[in-house]
Amino acid sequence: MACRRTLQMCGSGLLRRFGRQQQLRHSRSYGRDVAIIGAPFKKGQRLAGVEQGPRVMREAGLIEKIRELGHNVEDRGDLNFEVFKDDPRNYVLNPKAVGAATKKVSAAVEQAVRDNKLTVTLGGDHSISIGTIHGHAQAEPNLCLLWIDAHADINTPLTTPSGNIHGTPLSFLVNQLKDTIPWTALSPFDWLKPCLNITDIAFVGLRDLDPGERYILQKFNITSFSIHEVDRYGIHEVIARSLDAVNPKGDRPIHMSFDIDSVDPAVTGATGTPVPGGLTFREGMFIAEHVYRTGLLSALDLVEVNPEVGSRQDKANTVMTAVEVLTACLGKKREGNLQPGYQLPLP
Amino acid sequence: MACRRTLQMCGSGLLRRFGRQQQLRHSRSYGRDVAIIGAPFKKGQRLAGVEQGPRVMREAGLIEKIRELGHNVEDRGDLNFEVFKDDPRNYVLNPKAVGAATKKVSAAVEQAVRDNKLTVTLGGDHSISIGTIHGHAQAEPNLCLLWIDAHADINTPLTTPSGNIHGTPLSFLVNQLKDTIPWTALSPFDWLKPCLNITDIAFVGLRDLDPGERYILQKFNITSFSIHEVDRYGIHEVIARSLDAVNPKGDRPIHMSFDIDSVDPAVTGATGTPVPGGLTFREGMFIAEHVYRTGLLSALDLVEVNPEVGSRQDKANTVMTAVEVLTACLGKKREGNLQPGYQLPLP
Amino acid sequence: MACRRTLQMCGSGLLRRFGRQQQLRHSRSYGRDVAIIGAPFKKGQRLAGVEQGPRVMREAGLIEKIRELGHNVEDRGDLNFEVFKDDPRNYVLNPKAVGAATKKVSAAVEQAVRDNKLTVTLGGDHSISIGTIHGHAQAEPNLCLLWIDAHADINTPLTTPSGNIHGTPLSFLVNQLKDTIPWTALSPFDWLKPCLNITDIAFVGLRDLDPGERYILQKFNITSFSIHEVDRYGIHEVIARSLDAVNPKGDRPIHMSFDIDSVDPAVTGATGTPVPGGLTFREGMFIAEHVYRTGLLSALDLVEVNPEVGSRQDKANTVMTAVEVLTACLGKKREGNLQPGYQLPLP
Repeated sequence: MACRRTLQMCGSGLLRRFGRQQQLRHSRSYGRDVAIIGAPFKKGQRLAGVEQGPRVMREAGLIEKIRELGHNVEDRGDLNFEVFKDDPRNYVLNPKAVGAATKKVSAAVEQAVRDNKLTVTLGGDHSISIGTIHGHAQAEPNLCLLWIDAHADINTPLTTPSGNIHGTPLSFLVNQLKDTIPWTALSPFDWLKPCLNITDIAFVGLRDLDPGERYILQKFNITSFSIHEVDRYGIHEVIARSLDAVNPKGDRPIHMSFDIDSVDPAVTGATGTPVPGGLTFREGMFIAEHVYRTGLLSALDLVEVNPEVGSRQDKANTVMTAVEVLTACLGKKREGNLQPGYQLPLP
Repeated sequence: MACRRTLQMCGSGLLRRFGRQQQLRHSRSYGRDVAIIGAPFKKGQRLAGVEQGPRVMREAGLIEKIRELGHNVEDRGDLNFEVFKDDPRNYVLNPKAVGAATKKVSAAVEQAVRDNKLTVTLGGDHSISIGTIHGHAQAEPNLCLLWIDAHADINTPLTTPSGNIHGTPLSFLVNQLKDTIPWTALSPFDWLKPCLNITDIAFVGLRDLDPGERYILQKFNITSFSIHEVDRYGIHEVIARSLDAVNPKGDRPIHMSFDIDSVDPAVTGATGTPVPGGLTFREGMFIAEHVYRTGLLSALDLVEVNPEVGSRQDKANTVMTAVEVLTACLGKKREGNLQPGYQLPLP
Repeated sequence: MACRRTLQMCGSGLLRRFGRQQQLRHSRSYGRDVAIIGAPFKKGQRLAGVEQGPRVMREAGLIEKIRELGHNVEDRGDLNFEVFKDDPRNYVLNPKAVGAATKKVSAAVEQAVRDNKLTVTLGGDHSISIGTIHGHAQAEPNLCLLWIDAHADINTPLTTPSGNIHGTPLSFLVNQLKDTIPWTALSPFDWLKPCLNITDIAFVGLRDLDPGERYILQKFNITSFSIHEVDRYGIHEVIARSLDAVNPKGDRPIHMSFDIDSVDPAVTGATGTPVPGGLTFREGMFIAEHVYRTGLLSALDLVEVNPEVGSRQDKANTVMTAVEVLTACLGKKREGNLQPGYQLPLP
């Protein structure tokens, strides 16, 4: 695989930078310009608080930290989502609210990608990724998807035990699951066309799957690395094999959807559906740094930060982790960032 | 090694299930029927509370969670242990109480194994494993033993610094240590015959050994992986090599004795003799899932949960970990469990 | 590399001991005699408390624990540091205090090494390592250096953003950076001559570097393993490759400078400049055990324990970690220590 071989050949950071340039085969120059879109949406699940995600990440200095990396950052602010008097549960919860919100998210992301921005969407619950991926795919039909999450979020409206749409977004987007969706009953999603092949998805961090999700992953032989596999192969192999599988030639734009609950609740406890035994903070950062180095990241979601869950310390650690992961995705390196043209001052 | 090669060959879960069937060379069909035996015993050490282990694990829904995996579960309840006016320390503490209790445990486990049950014993302190392994060995003389623990628990009555029998159970059981036990002075153990070769034991997670224990492990060249080796080789290699060593042909029933203090006290603080730097929750789960996949697990102990030690959070996390490890040993998978005959519902 | 091959060839602890003897090619017999030097110094940074490091480590039983390993231990007590009315910041903070203190530390360490002691210096902040390494190098000019730290501490007085000398000690010591130091303005360091080649340093655990530091590491192609590399290669490879790089023939005395902030702040929160995502307690111990096994450790610093930072639990865990790392560096093994001539008692 091109991107992996290149990384292996290159020892020093300077060579890595060069190597990375080699990988920019796509027409756009990734990551020079960044757009931030806030999606303060909570109706894909039941807990209040997750709509505050964009605010708390911005308040932690996210925008400035991204600017310090040398990017042009355009903060496009928060999307406004209409309030609906939604049906009582009809297969799923709040279909009108989610359908309208994700349509809006899709349009905003599509526009930002067409504007040549590396597009970062701040959730909100994970249902918003119906919109981010759909919008991204309108502008970049060749995208591949990294889904970093404790959950696979690929229940269909007929298999979801909870009815929360944040556990189902991928089923709406995947061509192969088109016939499993009761589209007629879910008219608020009329605007949406499946736009993703299921083999274009790689899952990392899974540890809590429903029977329908296990069935789907197995039936379609999807690339997925549960936490068991992270311990078996190590995080580097897991992320490298994930990219090998969905982006073998290194020529596809990458959409990464990062659910903060992929990380262990001992670190990121401020989230709605925590599951023990998650990624370490270090593994989350490793994924982010590795994906940045491919030079192929085109759009990025950071979702499910809920500052109303857990202790004050949980909130602080969760927001810190979200901001660190986002800035690492955009080029911040724990080994230090060399500034272009830097010269050592002499007395 | 058969079991390892089989696992490596098989990518998908379905194939893994098939592969696992291949490994069932033993006459019994492992794990179809499960017996639960409570051993609320504390006299192998000095702290009150560990006798509540069976109760708190049951209250956390253990039995139902095992049933949900499709097993027939027979909860045989708690054993009643006689109260003794024991001698003041005679080599070890409470020999009468421990001798009588472990005799009872041995009989119960032997009966359950003969009844063709995968036998799960809930401790209680680790002295009860004198009984579980002895009983298991009466019905399955060919067993091998995985001892997952911060401690080796192989002091003899003459080497134990504390005099607590929960630090000595293996010395009572091992043929090669027969002459080191003062049997005459320890008549409450008259019923017991050593039944295990020391080379049939593999230790994982060790990090606090007494000089006599180090001497024994070294003299007999025992398979043992301290936490140093877990970091050196990774948990997968450690558990695979452990099984390679004690079960090279994959034809022996496995007894796993899991001391909750093998896991790090930051997770499982509710235990009597915590030692820093333990297995992660993930590594504990990895061991459990790996052992399940061999299809050879025949008996299982979960010991040293003490809800009276540590904070409320320690208690909750410790019990949760115990229950998750137990259910993973019995087939629950973090990658999700496929239900037999599952079909995706269509609208 | 000799030391690594030897370790790989040797399975049992006994063989390892033999193997280790093979590595003692240096004229001194390392580690038979240990000197402890307290350096209760805080003027290399701004927070009070770090001067209590030597006291809290001693109160945790450090000296006795080292004696139990069979070493002759000479506790040479705490150095007394003069109080200075220092200039307001002149490139760096407190140059007079740090210059005088590190001169004293250098003399004490040089003497102890010449007295044939494995010399352990208890900090204090990391500026004291100007003295420990300088002193060590006077007696052992051929030393190599392992720097275990979240930070590279190789800013020059002209690149340091904070002005705290504890972020600059290596720039004072390194031949290749001689011209970057404003020696004339820093007359309190007149006593000091650079004594280390930059290629003699290996960094492990880095995760927070300033631009000047990144530039220096890259320009001189320094051996350094950030936390990203620890996750990529595993701690064993990282420490083995570090030693391969700076000590390829296994014939150089090793100076290890262990900053407690290399370890994760969830464990060692009682330190002045914590950085998330650090070494695990286990990885810290692994490094210590591995370095001990080389038989080449000649001097050791343990710095930046600050009992006035963080919670009571942070303090306890930080001091415990420091003491465990130090004793592991001096031979305590988690797999257990065999006592010479030990015989199993018989009834």
